[in-house]
Amino acid sequence: MARLIEQFERLPGIGPRTAQRLALYLLRQPEEQSQAFAEALLAARQQVGQCQRCGHLSAETLCNICLNQGRNIGLICVVADSRDLLALERTREYKGSYHVLGGLISPMDGIGPEALMIQALLKRLDPEEVKEVILALTPSVEGDTTSLYLGRLLKPFCQVTRIAYGLPMGSELEYADEVTLARALEGRRAME
Amino acid sequence: MARLIEQFERLPGIGPRTAQRLALYLLRQPEEQSQAFAEALLAARQQVGQCQRCGHLSAETLCNICLNQGRNIGLICVVADSRDLLALERTREYKGSYHVLGGLISPMDGIGPEALMIQALLKRLDPEEVKEVILALTPSVEGDTTSLYLGRLLKPFCQVTRIAYGLPMGSELEYADEVTLARALEGRRAME
Repeated sequence: MARLIEQFERLPGIGPRTAQRLALYLLRQPEEQSQAFAEALLAARQQVGQCQRCGHLSAETLCNICLNQGRNIGLICVVADSRDLLALERTREYKGSYHVLGGLISPMDGIGPEALMIQALLKRLDPEEVKEVILALTPSVEGDTTSLYLGRLLKPFCQVTRIAYGLPMGSELEYADEVTLARALEGRRAME
Repeated sequence: MARLIEQFERLPGIGPRTAQRLALYLLRQPEEQSQAFAEALLAARQQVGQCQRCGHLSAETLCNICLNQGRNIGLICVVADSRDLLALERTREYKGSYHVLGGLISPMDGIGPEALMIQALLKRLDPEEVKEVILALTPSVEGDTTSLYLGRLLKPFCQVTRIAYGLPMGSELEYADEVTLARALEGRRAME
């Protein structure tokens, strides 16, 4: 019992009380449920690997997005990890392909460019095929560093763009922090 | 006493308990403090009006920003109200002038373009002088409506731009809402 609680506690966002509640709940359910849970866990861990092309989570050699003929392979959106990819998919606006870096450059944490999937990205940049790379990295020191690095590296091969930083939807100018407002001003665009 | 509490309660963000605490505090202080408070209130209400040029709060005919020779009058940033102007001033990045609309177009609330300071803005658009108008309105239905309206109206006179909408600083892609992410993708810019 203590071992099960401890395992739950290791998960992000789950404290000791929640861990105890979850463990007690499972013990009160039929044994099949625990078996199914354990099997799902082992199977997921064994079967889910990385897409050989874009680095997204995938049980097959290529992920569903890379296999989808309807996606524009001339457009590659670069993200730090699969969670960011899934966030962009939820918008249902993006019809291009992705490339998952597996992190961001962070000299403070000893993460340099060589630790990221950058060589694999360069290999994908056939100038006949890829017209634009969109950098969709978080607006932070690490995200900015990585965007600058990739911008310089990729520009000889294709157009490199960066997602917009500015006021989020539904926000008030009055409550926006100074850096966000300064970026929103700096990044202004002509009205169509 | 009840009348004083009631007056405090009418202020935004102040509930009955806070109102009571503030009223009791003032009664415990020397009488001069209440007198100074009352005088400041009456004086501010009497003396502070609108800048005749930009509509910002001002005790004089023209506000401090309009009088400042160091500001670029060829650039006008359009905001809904003086609070938004003060937010932009806090960035210390903007060196142009402003125009305060006094609200946003909102058909639901019966606020049409004629209720806003738009005629006064048009009068300022001397093509010899004004090169660009930046629309800095909140990302909401009313802000979008007003931006579209002003964009069409002002384009014959000068360049019209709009501040960037996208990810705010320090945010995570993963937690951004779909509309913000879609706007950030749509508003992407070429890396310099």
